[in-house]
Amino acid sequence: MTNHKTAVVYVRLKDGVLDPQGVTIHKALTQMGYDDFTSVRTGRFFELEIKADSEDIDRKIDEVCSKLLANPVIETYTVEKR
Amino acid sequence: MTNHKTAVVYVRLKDGVLDPQGVTIHKALTQMGYDDFTSVRTGRFFELEIKADSEDIDRKIDEVCSKLLANPVIETYTVEKR
Repeated sequence: MTNHKTAVVYVRLKDGVLDPQGVTIHKALTQMGYDDFTSVRTGRFFELEIKADSEDIDRKIDEVCSKLLANPVIETYTVEKR
Repeated sequence: MTNHKTAVVYVRLKDGVLDPQGVTIHKALTQMGYDDFTSVRTGRFFELEIKADSEDIDRKIDEVCSKLLANPVIETYTVEKR
């Protein structure tokens, strides 16, 4: 078992799911004169500090992602360990 | 000048700034029986697709971060190019 101190969970909307916040930001950028961008997609991330003596942490992280941190119907997530 | 197709901006609260959303998630995890985590911090990210012929894009990204995407008073941001 390998222990990591931190796991970062990145949650983003699935491809094809409309991102109204991203669309709004893109419009705002264009109105501000920044016309170098073709699209903006938004997401969120969670930095989870893990106890040193945790066991089976990969499975637990996967569970909390699908139960609490992400909505599997419209979102995907990736986990990065540090 | 180097062109990149995508820039990802990660925005997080500065150290020491209270993260109520993270605190709430941490409490929820504990109540759900997941007691392997000592803290949760939240953040958001923005995937910016950049036009191929953009010039001076590093400066522009820095400007839109501090003007629109982040609140420099309480947040920090990092930019990752892909």
